[in-house]
Amino acid sequence: MHKMTVAAFRALVERDLPLARWLGFSAEAIGEGKATIRLPFRDDLVRPGGTIAGPAMMALADCAMYAAVLGMRGDAIMAVTSNLSIHFLRAPKPVDMVAEAALLRMGRRLAVVEVRLYSAGDGTPVAHIAGTYALPGQAHGANIAVP
Amino acid sequence: MHKMTVAAFRALVERDLPLARWLGFSAEAIGEGKATIRLPFRDDLVRPGGTIAGPAMMALADCAMYAAVLGMRGDAIMAVTSNLSIHFLRAPKPVDMVAEAALLRMGRRLAVVEVRLYSAGDGTPVAHIAGTYALPGQAHGANIAVP
Amino acid sequence: MHKMTVAAFRALVERDLPLARWLGFSAEAIGEGKATIRLPFRDDLVRPGGTIAGPAMMALADCAMYAAVLGMRGDAIMAVTSNLSIHFLRAPKPVDMVAEAALLRMGRRLAVVEVRLYSAGDGTPVAHIAGTYALPGQAHGANIAVP
Amino acid sequence: MHKMTVAAFRALVERDLPLARWLGFSAEAIGEGKATIRLPFRDDLVRPGGTIAGPAMMALADCAMYAAVLGMRGDAIMAVTSNLSIHFLRAPKPVDMVAEAALLRMGRRLAVVEVRLYSAGDGTPVAHIAGTYALPGQAHGANIAVP
Repeated sequence: MHKMTVAAFRALVERDLPLARWLGFSAEAIGEGKATIRLPFRDDLVRPGGTIAGPAMMALADCAMYAAVLGMRGDAIMAVTSNLSIHFLRAPKPVDMVAEAALLRMGRRLAVVEVRLYSAGDGTPVAHIAGTYALPGQAHGANIAVP
Repeated sequence: MHKMTVAAFRALVERDLPLARWLGFSAEAIGEGKATIRLPFRDDLVRPGGTIAGPAMMALADCAMYAAVLGMRGDAIMAVTSNLSIHFLRAPKPVDMVAEAALLRMGRRLAVVEVRLYSAGDGTPVAHIAGTYALPGQAHGANIAVP
Repeated sequence: MHKMTVAAFRALVERDLPLARWLGFSAEAIGEGKATIRLPFRDDLVRPGGTIAGPAMMALADCAMYAAVLGMRGDAIMAVTSNLSIHFLRAPKPVDMVAEAALLRMGRRLAVVEVRLYSAGDGTPVAHIAGTYALPGQAHGANIAVP
Repeated sequence: MHKMTVAAFRALVERDLPLARWLGFSAEAIGEGKATIRLPFRDDLVRPGGTIAGPAMMALADCAMYAAVLGMRGDAIMAVTSNLSIHFLRAPKPVDMVAEAALLRMGRRLAVVEVRLYSAGDGTPVAHIAGTYALPGQAHGANIAVP
């Protein structure tokens, strides 16, 4: 089964994930069930207090989960988030943010993924995320396996 | 303590929440610990499969939680999401989405909020969210009460 | 497909759920995708502060989720919790606690369930839970459909 | 500020946590914001399918979170779970289970803790947990800082 490359994931974002594209997400590394995605800091992603808005962080985490799943099963483009739980740890600094995702469990139907968000530079942890992706059937990659 | 009005919340989005503004969130109703926010459907919010992207839904839920908190404590602009847990129920149709948020508990330091996301029109439930907002001190509305 | 009755669920607890039996869980009502379970107060379920211990509340919620699933699909004895997220709202009083569970979504593979925990008597809400059960295949009720 | 020792935590379980005592939880190590707790396997902790019941696992995780918090702030006996999110990864084998908890963030009011559950012996991961404890005020360790 092919794994997704960084170049292929970037093309996927460019073509099929307009929200991730608008947010500027940049895939830095994708391995077998692992992914690193960067959110370049921008003034229009802040919220009152001058920190990066929570929804931008949740979007970054979700994108990294998706990339980690595709890093294991490159055909699972139709995988969808089934649930996601995020704990915010600190107000992030106004700098780039990095997401590191890793599979905790790859099942036939469900993948459980963990993500850690850091402020780039000093590497301060800013959020922890765990979630589940529902996977499409292996023989029918084009069907959505929604719960 | 003043409560936030729909008009005041719209102005807040316009001025201080650029991501919510870009996503087109529109406050429809804000009451004491309650809020209804609409996400107008747009082609650039979809993901593979043609459904609204999960991160847009998480952002909508977070915005509704924030509005519900401000509907109870209009001074708590600096309230921040402490945690959020979302369960996706169905792939949403390519139509407007509506978030209805209601406080489960308003404490002195923490507010727990529940949100239901529906597809507009037929009202199909598409996601359920529960989360916590950390509140700024009442006497010092300008400080961030991050955990 | 048969639905599970209160009597059948009580027998299941008695025979196959020793922890729920020890905790004294008592099924009060089971409907199509709904269930009400009571935890009779006991001194040995408290924690420092004199309130009911959080794990007893999580166990109660999980039991109610399971009963709600079986209320819809009585054959799904092998259904297992896939994830669970709980928000505690208030320290519960030293009285009976009641769980009311309702399905948010019944899929072929996954059921998403919401539970509200109340203090009996005055009905004060003490916790909110949302979670997912993984369902066994309909034709092979005896297989565990773990993720 | 004193940290809690393994011996002191065991005495606390014995005296004040009857549910943890009944479940047989045994503290193996407690450090600064870290804790390892063991659940010895017992026949009366299983559920249909012969695996350890989910609620016993949630209770184990919560106990480990509590011990990790006390490992950092030994006076915070009145700390209470504010929220907890668990993802089950695999049906655990009928052997001892071990919880390893570590603080992700220790704030003044809230502590965010992560827990991994393993089957003893081969170390297979069986669940991942993240949650928040609300801390009592430092000067008034006897007050419950419930949200």
